[in-house]
Amino acid sequence: MSEERLPSRSENFSEWYNQVVLRAELADYAPVRGCMVARPYGWALWENVQAALDRRFKATGHVNAAFPLFIPMSFLEKEKEHVEGFSPELAVVTIGGGEQLEEPLIIRPTSETIIGHMYAKWVKSYRDLPILINLWNSVVRWEMRTKLFLRTTEFYWQEGHTAHATPEEAQNETIQMLNVYADFAEAEAGVPVVKGRKSDSEKFAGALRSYTIEAMMGDKRALQAGTSHNLGDNFARAFGIRYLDRENTLQYCWTTSWGLSWRFIGAIIMVHGDDKGLVLPPRLAPYQVVIVPIYKNDDERAKVQEVVERVRSGLSEFRVHTDWRDGLTPGFKFNDWEMRGVPLRLEIGPRDVAAGTAALARRDVPGREGKRTVQLDRLPTLVGETLKDIHRSLFEQASEFRRANTRQPHDYEEFKQLVQDGWVDAWWCGEAACESQIKDETKSTTRCIPLEQPGGSGMCIHCGKPATERAIFGRSY
Amino acid sequence: MSEERLPSRSENFSEWYNQVVLRAELADYAPVRGCMVARPYGWALWENVQAALDRRFKATGHVNAAFPLFIPMSFLEKEKEHVEGFSPELAVVTIGGGEQLEEPLIIRPTSETIIGHMYAKWVKSYRDLPILINLWNSVVRWEMRTKLFLRTTEFYWQEGHTAHATPEEAQNETIQMLNVYADFAEAEAGVPVVKGRKSDSEKFAGALRSYTIEAMMGDKRALQAGTSHNLGDNFARAFGIRYLDRENTLQYCWTTSWGLSWRFIGAIIMVHGDDKGLVLPPRLAPYQVVIVPIYKNDDERAKVQEVVERVRSGLSEFRVHTDWRDGLTPGFKFNDWEMRGVPLRLEIGPRDVAAGTAALARRDVPGREGKRTVQLDRLPTLVGETLKDIHRSLFEQASEFRRANTRQPHDYEEFKQLVQDGWVDAWWCGEAACESQIKDETKSTTRCIPLEQPGGSGMCIHCGKPATERAIFGRSY
Repeated sequence: MSEERLPSRSENFSEWYNQVVLRAELADYAPVRGCMVARPYGWALWENVQAALDRRFKATGHVNAAFPLFIPMSFLEKEKEHVEGFSPELAVVTIGGGEQLEEPLIIRPTSETIIGHMYAKWVKSYRDLPILINLWNSVVRWEMRTKLFLRTTEFYWQEGHTAHATPEEAQNETIQMLNVYADFAEAEAGVPVVKGRKSDSEKFAGALRSYTIEAMMGDKRALQAGTSHNLGDNFARAFGIRYLDRENTLQYCWTTSWGLSWRFIGAIIMVHGDDKGLVLPPRLAPYQVVIVPIYKNDDERAKVQEVVERVRSGLSEFRVHTDWRDGLTPGFKFNDWEMRGVPLRLEIGPRDVAAGTAALARRDVPGREGKRTVQLDRLPTLVGETLKDIHRSLFEQASEFRRANTRQPHDYEEFKQLVQDGWVDAWWCGEAACESQIKDETKSTTRCIPLEQPGGSGMCIHCGKPATERAIFGRSY
Repeated sequence: MSEERLPSRSENFSEWYNQVVLRAELADYAPVRGCMVARPYGWALWENVQAALDRRFKATGHVNAAFPLFIPMSFLEKEKEHVEGFSPELAVVTIGGGEQLEEPLIIRPTSETIIGHMYAKWVKSYRDLPILINLWNSVVRWEMRTKLFLRTTEFYWQEGHTAHATPEEAQNETIQMLNVYADFAEAEAGVPVVKGRKSDSEKFAGALRSYTIEAMMGDKRALQAGTSHNLGDNFARAFGIRYLDRENTLQYCWTTSWGLSWRFIGAIIMVHGDDKGLVLPPRLAPYQVVIVPIYKNDDERAKVQEVVERVRSGLSEFRVHTDWRDGLTPGFKFNDWEMRGVPLRLEIGPRDVAAGTAALARRDVPGREGKRTVQLDRLPTLVGETLKDIHRSLFEQASEFRRANTRQPHDYEEFKQLVQDGWVDAWWCGEAACESQIKDETKSTTRCIPLEQPGGSGMCIHCGKPATERAIFGRSY
């Protein structure tokens, strides 16, 4: 709620982002390096993300649980790639209850290892499988460069951990959860995503195969918005998760893990926001409708209030907030709620009371064009329809933006140029050395190898070797 | 799901408790000292506790947020009593990202200090007050003797933190939240509680006044099941939480905090459980109804299944689970779900299919008496009514148990005897020295000074000095 103008989104995207997060009171910097406070408005948005995902997890047979924050250091060391990947990022507890600990405890950077230990204890027979557990919690990774929501030392997320009898089941689960994430992103947040496989160098430490949903932000950079990992039997072997099959033979399990964090809120901000601030997708917005009552004196206030109460009760199926703050002009309130991204604003003043109308303004359509006078009795229907239309429109706009900024270069010279300002879709040989050279030369990385491929083959855009898959390249968060 | 018998509740209450928690798969010991894993069945119970409290918090104007897990050590030191109270219990992070930290970070044992720091930043004027924030998270206290749910090194809870313009408002908030806890305990969990003030020696480190809801467990010991603290201006002064009032004068705020943790699940187990295991209160039970289909062959199974599906869809407003596990007898399943405390069990077999009936068994009434044959078409109504009756009955039974085991001794000799096996309600002088002697001599403590007092005055049960308040004494968890 500051009266200074926001930095322009096109001129300084990064500073625009920071200011939107702070001024909309989504979050604030914490007094601990790299950590943040999720303020009530930001946390309400995260709660809506949680609810939308949780519904989908439960519909696919998953249940929630809670595992400890602490993991013995020795657990991490049981899976070689895992410990190499996470060692540099650990926070370590060395003192507990005033005494030096014999074995230091790490704060979980992710829970595969302690999950592995417990699943090994719980799984005895094929009857105990599959285990389909999800955790809602926070984890800690000691990041060097942090940014609100996108990269914080402690971050909130969910981590799913499943164990299966066969590699096929584990692979199906991995892809199922990737699809759940994509459906959530598009149907709830209006954020179009590409589903794809991560290259070997970009995959999760300890995974057999990692999958991602990649989204294009408003500055044309890519954001990995959710990941799903087929862990093969790596963690099952490291922790001894075994079961007796129907023939009474001891077999290793096949496990998966998948996670989506509050960085997704960063995606929502960067995909839909504009120079006026946040533009929240209607299905996740903490408030879907804000009512701004307009009055000049107590008499007008009383009349307006009566109508506002009636309107509110007619809109009980929506999340509605009425802004009765004293001492602020309606104009100030309009700007404030635009900055906070509320999808619909209803203005009700004395003239509206007399005429049985209200002014309804869409956040996604700027200025006069997005505002119209509506009959009060039509509001419940109109609000529902307009929220749907805003969702559709946000999704289409973001899809069109991504389409317009994803190019197919003819050669590596063109690649180098295009990848500085958008995504590139090109044949790629799949080799780590080639990928690493591209990164050195362009600062861009393989975002993913899309699941949807055109078929056929071509020449690698960088090294010219034969290639059977196309990859998306881009600069990323 | 073990076929061994549970230890008897009357003979070994403590071991009965541990075994119920483990066998009902509410929780398991974690591989980190004093920590536990909340398994899906236990976590679902906690999610229902959360939902029931969260509804009440929101109805009283509170919003949720998230604060960092880490607190700089120096913050704790700003409030003298607070640091003294919590220092012995801290987990300390000394290494982050591979390097020794300049200032160690503690894992929050509670968040008053970091809340204080942020509120000081956010509050400028009386317009910013009150702040009514709640956090759902976990905290860490390095406990020496731990017990599943009741006392764990890391535990899940909620912590409310509010800031107000006047001491009266802070006191009203403190009492309001105490009432919210009491209403939750009785209306949702069927656990009768005494609302009272903590003695000075039992109050929260840094509080002006602490209030508690105390519940009597099945072994007649007391459990502090939720606390609400009026922090006065202690934390406001320590952290500089100040506001400009309407006259433009800088004033300190008045703050409160209140918390209820997953130890409440321990209360539910210990208040309602019996020799067969858990008895869950219907409003919080993960499953309110379990259907056990009975069949001997595929033909019978198909017929039963058709009816089960119909019954399920008629019970869609309840949380219903159907146990289709193969290879287990109906008798085994009956015992299993009794042990897990599901309030109602429906048995549907071929004879029921033919007769249009089912057997409905109440968990709270043992044996044949609790089981009756009911018409399928009456089920939706009957299930609703019976769940309500089970709640009422559990609450009454627990209230009667507490009444029968709360005594009023004539003298200290009688006090010493009675307090070994129940609660004692007696006049008390309120002095710390007297309280401490009682503790040394009887191992009992003042549980609380009930808000509801008979009036009048008497002589302190221990020292004989004049007393104007009666206190509840007991041994506690």
